[in-house]
Amino acid sequence: MDDIIVKSSSHSYAITIGENVRFLVDNYVTKKYSSILVVSDKTVADLYANDIMNSLKGENTFLSIVPVGEQSKDIRLFYQLHTEAINHGLDRQSLIIALGGGVIGDLAGFVASTYMRGIDYIQLPTTILAHDSSVGGKVAINHELGKNLIGSFYPPKAVIYDTQTLQTLSEKEVRSGYAELIKEALIADGAFLNSLLETDLFSLSTKELEEHLRTGIKIKATIVEEDEKEAGNRKYLNLGHTLGHALETELGYGTITHGEAVAIGLLFSIHVSELMYATKLPYNPLLKWFKKNHYPLDLRNIDEKSLLNIMKSDKKIMNKMIQMVLLKDTGQPTIQELDDEDLHSYLKSFITKLSSE
Amino acid sequence: MDDIIVKSSSHSYAITIGENVRFLVDNYVTKKYSSILVVSDKTVADLYANDIMNSLKGENTFLSIVPVGEQSKDIRLFYQLHTEAINHGLDRQSLIIALGGGVIGDLAGFVASTYMRGIDYIQLPTTILAHDSSVGGKVAINHELGKNLIGSFYPPKAVIYDTQTLQTLSEKEVRSGYAELIKEALIADGAFLNSLLETDLFSLSTKELEEHLRTGIKIKATIVEEDEKEAGNRKYLNLGHTLGHALETELGYGTITHGEAVAIGLLFSIHVSELMYATKLPYNPLLKWFKKNHYPLDLRNIDEKSLLNIMKSDKKIMNKMIQMVLLKDTGQPTIQELDDEDLHSYLKSFITKLSSE
Repeated sequence: MDDIIVKSSSHSYAITIGENVRFLVDNYVTKKYSSILVVSDKTVADLYANDIMNSLKGENTFLSIVPVGEQSKDIRLFYQLHTEAINHGLDRQSLIIALGGGVIGDLAGFVASTYMRGIDYIQLPTTILAHDSSVGGKVAINHELGKNLIGSFYPPKAVIYDTQTLQTLSEKEVRSGYAELIKEALIADGAFLNSLLETDLFSLSTKELEEHLRTGIKIKATIVEEDEKEAGNRKYLNLGHTLGHALETELGYGTITHGEAVAIGLLFSIHVSELMYATKLPYNPLLKWFKKNHYPLDLRNIDEKSLLNIMKSDKKIMNKMIQMVLLKDTGQPTIQELDDEDLHSYLKSFITKLSSE
Repeated sequence: MDDIIVKSSSHSYAITIGENVRFLVDNYVTKKYSSILVVSDKTVADLYANDIMNSLKGENTFLSIVPVGEQSKDIRLFYQLHTEAINHGLDRQSLIIALGGGVIGDLAGFVASTYMRGIDYIQLPTTILAHDSSVGGKVAINHELGKNLIGSFYPPKAVIYDTQTLQTLSEKEVRSGYAELIKEALIADGAFLNSLLETDLFSLSTKELEEHLRTGIKIKATIVEEDEKEAGNRKYLNLGHTLGHALETELGYGTITHGEAVAIGLLFSIHVSELMYATKLPYNPLLKWFKKNHYPLDLRNIDEKSLLNIMKSDKKIMNKMIQMVLLKDTGQPTIQELDDEDLHSYLKSFITKLSSE
């Protein structure tokens, strides 16, 4: 099928989606690079690094492997990858390839954006979740005081998405990725939402998955083309993320996946939207679908105060008011500033509601 | 006098040069920022931080002070400034002001370029040398394996240059700054070069200095407007820096200033150019002027082999050949690739020549 083309302020890049495209990576590296550094994590490298290295088959091709998990998005590994790039002799005409999920894409992309003031990089996402982060050029590492606080807007030169690599994902990871697809549908496409809500994640066909990824990526691409630097509409993509990020931080990365936290965040956004705009949104169908697909939704033991504090330190805060993405309707996102008191009261009623269902 | 306007790919910004403009900083901060972090070093902060803070007089204005010297351009201070920015509550609508020389501009600019994926920053250079680094948006920190290896292209929102702050510079710092002015003259403007060679650095008037800065900055601005990301002509600005950087690394930062090292590098570039293009360049007038103004030029105890190795690890290396900026004539720079052997032989003959003069 056709590639999806994304126009960024500096260049256009293609997103290629297909089965087994990882064996053809060399075909998508159209420019002549002096050397290539593939960055991956242990799990993904064991499965796919050989396929990529064999496809590239150049003499100046190197592999850097970082530990699995969110804790790799930190300043020490960022610096270490710079060290490895220097030691391998990467210069300004070199390429970095990020082979893995969102953590690898964010980390390797941020290294590429700062290595000798920026070299090219290509995303090879290997999770469903990374359909979201691999497109649009947001790259970052975490600061100990908050997620994604150190980073750049730095679009990749290409995204190569091998759907076969998604076959090895755990159920948790499938759920995690689908939460971001649900988010994109809520923001932009009611028909897509209905189609997702008819999907059973435990019997997903490759064809269905590819179609969902393609639709989700198109929604994302349209938004980032309009607002690359997140001055306006791109903020809509943070739907569900105010509470989502806070839950990840509060519970600890690894306890709950990013998408699972976002799923709860989406329900919270809908809850607030319904109350604030006195409107009817698909809270119940979504809750039902999350439950059917075993999303963890239990917030009974959560520390509300602590969640609130984390939300207040989130970087989307403007002039000390919390900005939340809400929905006036499916496909009609909006930004709303909330003060602490309102946010607290919405969070209280949401936890009560969710716990009673 | 009129501001100099620089067009970058993302925005245009003004360079204001004048006596006492630091007291008017607030007038040049035209946008409403939610908070402002002024970054400076101990020496500069003691002299001028109060003037800036008083001009800004906002409630959300903070000051971060880092140690004096090149060693502050490192990953630890980079991270520490992020921590301070977070703790002060800086958000995406905040501003960083770099108050100091090139080290502060590079460090604070790089923090701004990566804080929450990039916030605005303004340069307030307080050295002559920083007329070069404050314009054009190259920001970076050093890696232990090389200078400026981690950074971004990230233009400031404004440059405010108070010539009064240059009155307190030491002779060494005046020499350092003038070497970059000589470089700009060699690249682009023979008449400017002649005027510089008539200047006595020990009896410099504010008027002369301001005129030199203005001419140097205009040369720099013209070049970076044509080639912001250093894909072509901007490389000419590295004239004298292949050997210059290597000398700084070999001798240790602090032993020789950046500009003093560049001065030797300029002589080396001219030496190579004269031999390679069988042309006559102003080697002797320049040498005479450097001597008259007490530039350190003694290379008799230098380790050639070590210098060569450092030059080979410089980031301007393309495909393992060293790229040097040379001159076909004053105002006619060119890029030449050199192999190790040629470079070694040129370096040998240069050191012999310089030591015999």
